[in-house]
This record gives sequence, structure tokens and C-alpha cells, in this order.
Amino acid sequence: MQIERDILSKNDAYAAANRERLAQTGTLALNLVSSPGAGKTTLLVRSITDLEGRYPIAVIEGDQQTANDADRIRETGVPAVQVNTGKGCHLDAHMVGHAFDSIELKDGGILFIENVGNLVCPAGFDLGEAHKVAILSVTEGDDKPIKYPDMFAAADVMILNKTDLLPYVDFDVERCLAFARRVNPDILCFQLSATTGEGTEAWYGWIEETAAKARAAA
Amino acid sequence: MQIERDILSKNDAYAAANRERLAQTGTLALNLVSSPGAGKTTLLVRSITDLEGRYPIAVIEGDQQTANDADRIRETGVPAVQVNTGKGCHLDAHMVGHAFDSIELKDGGILFIENVGNLVCPAGFDLGEAHKVAILSVTEGDDKPIKYPDMFAAADVMILNKTDLLPYVDFDVERCLAFARRVNPDILCFQLSATTGEGTEAWYGWIEETAAKARAAA
Repeated sequence: MQIERDILSKNDAYAAANRERLAQTGTLALNLVSSPGAGKTTLLVRSITDLEGRYPIAVIEGDQQTANDADRIRETGVPAVQVNTGKGCHLDAHMVGHAFDSIELKDGGILFIENVGNLVCPAGFDLGEAHKVAILSVTEGDDKPIKYPDMFAAADVMILNKTDLLPYVDFDVERCLAFARRVNPDILCFQLSATTGEGTEAWYGWIEETAAKARAAA
Repeated sequence: MQIERDILSKNDAYAAANRERLAQTGTLALNLVSSPGAGKTTLLVRSITDLEGRYPIAVIEGDQQTANDADRIRETGVPAVQVNTGKGCHLDAHMVGHAFDSIELKDGGILFIENVGNLVCPAGFDLGEAHKVAILSVTEGDDKPIKYPDMFAAADVMILNKTDLLPYVDFDVERCLAFARRVNPDILCFQLSATTGEGTEAWYGWIEETAAKARAAA
């Protein structure tokens, strides 16, 4: 436990430094967390494509291995840095601080940080982001918020993704939302399909509003 | 790194004790690992229902929170122990050893251990099982074996689950199998749908063959 506390307090110091650096440019940083394959990268590619031009956007991609995701992001024309964690199961604030060295943060921009696909470990690590956004795909089952409560308690936003697959799976949206609110009464929920684009406007609206706050605070 | 080594060597000692205990009753222990929501519990419920009577079966269920999965298993009539890991991101051999105290292992039986849904951390922890079985659902994307290579290297078997959803998602089965074999040339692959039952016979055949070996070695 002492070791765990030491690691977390060290991480918090790096996170505070990251937060300060982000504040200087009024950058909104969102930390996207989910299980592997919940659609984080697909959601990012669509969001970037739809929001580009409105804001300077940059992306930090976390994965155990491969640069596939950063490659997918760069195809949109937006700068992306890949961080490979190797054996590591989550990004930490120190890795993100280093990634800042190879990415330019422009005034009033948005930084998306895509964490390693893992619904457990990234919950405990502050990266200096404004909000954790938990993405849950409807193919994963509606009970996930109570089975992995730390993540849904740590997130300010839950995105129910892959709603285009709802007709083919056994997933009760209302039950899932109730479970999410049981572990986090204030959690904000969006339902969308990153594949078809259905439902993304509300998500973009929230980003716009939240980015305006970050800019105003700079 | 020293701390990591110490934890793993302690775990290995517990795993060896578990393995010895399993060998005494000729029990085949399988450690089921996957992302959250890949269908581990659904596969277990179907496998138990189809295999019951042929073998004594017992289940250890790992989850951060809730006893939902053990409850689902007990509905089949098979004994199940729930282990809640709390903040923990994987089962370890010590937890499994304790679970043995509240579950009866009968001669020539099968013990299914359902790990916490996490495609990263459980890879490093031997529980004393005969084989790790990695379940990947086709909704998660065909690139997962190379993005989370440790797990697919640690597993002897990969089950491609939710094949009934293949018509609705962008997933290339051959590409996925090639990726899995790139990180683990000896990995055995089964394609099935735990929901419809399609493809489960080959999986049961493998269990039967492997359980016979465990019995013969007792």
C-alpha cells in the first residue's frame, strides 16, 4: 500500500505539471478510457474529421505495442504521438509529459489522450486531463459500470458507443445508465455510433462548451 | 523492477502449490482471460450446460465488484466462488488458493477460472492453471493480438467469440488469426458464438482431450 501511495503521489506531481502546461495554452485535454476494442480510435478519427478547422487538435496515443492508432490519426492530418507502454497497463502523467515534448499545443486547442485499452488500471492515474471520458460499447454488456466501478466513478462522461449494433445484442440502455449513475450520480452520458455518426452532435456540443471554458480560463 | 520480480516470484510459489493441488485430483484448470464484455461468462454458462454430467465442474469467478457472474454460474447448478479484487486488476495465485478452500475439487473434474476482464495485467500471473484461454470477440477488432501481444503470447488457446456478429462489424478473421500466430506461432484457435452455440463442438472436443490428459497424469 505504501508503494502504491508513493507511485500515485509521484504521478500526481507530474499530472499537476501537465495541467499547468495545458492551462498556459487554454488547451482542453480529454483522457479517453475504455476496454480494448470499444471504439476509442474510431470515435477519435470521426470527431477529429468533424471538428477540424474549428480547433487546433492534437492526439497522444497509448498502446502496449504498435503505432497503428497514431498512424490512423495522422491520416486525418492531425499531429499524433504514439506512446508504447510495453508491459505497462496504462498511461501515466510522466509519459504524457514527455509526449508534450514532441507535440505542439496551440492556443485554445483540444488534446485527446487515448489511453491503453483497460477498464481497470487507467482509473487511478490522473494525466493532467480536464475530464476522463469512459467509452463503453453496447457489445460489452450493460452491467459493466457496476463490475468496473472505479472507472465509471473516475469518469465525468460515459459514451455508449456502437449503438448501431443494439438490434443484434442483448443490452438494456436504461439499465446501463442506471448502473452508471449508481456509481457516479453526476456522470454525463452520450449515446452514439462512431461508425455511422449517429448521436455525435451532442458529444461535439459538449466538447465545444468545455473547450470554451478551457480557453476562457487561460 | 525489483518489486515486480518479487511479486511475480511470490505468485509463482503460490501457483506451484495450486498446480500440485489440482494434480492430486487430476483436475483440468483453465484460466479464461479477455477484455471486459468479450463473453467469458456467457461462454462458461453454455459450456457448463453442454458438458455437465460428463465431468464434475467448478468455477472461480474474478471481478472487481459484484457477485453477478458467480450467480449466473450457480443457476446452472455448478458450484462457483466469487473473488472480488476491489482495486485489483487481475486474479493472483494466492487468491485462487484461498478460493480452493471454499470449493470442492472432485476427481477428474474441470475448474474454470474466469479472470477479471483485462487484456493486459492477467497475462503476467500464473494461477496454477494448465492453460490460459484468451477470448477475443469480433466486435473488438482484428488487430488486438498485436496491440496486446503479451496476453496472446501467454495464452495457449484463442477463442474468437461472437461470430454471429461478423456480418455487422468490420473484422477480418484471417487477418486476426495471422496476427495471433505472429505473436504466438503455436496458439490454437477456435471460432464460435457463445450466444448461438455455433462452433462450440471443436472447443468441447479440445476440453475433452485436455481433461483426459489431466486425469491420466493424476
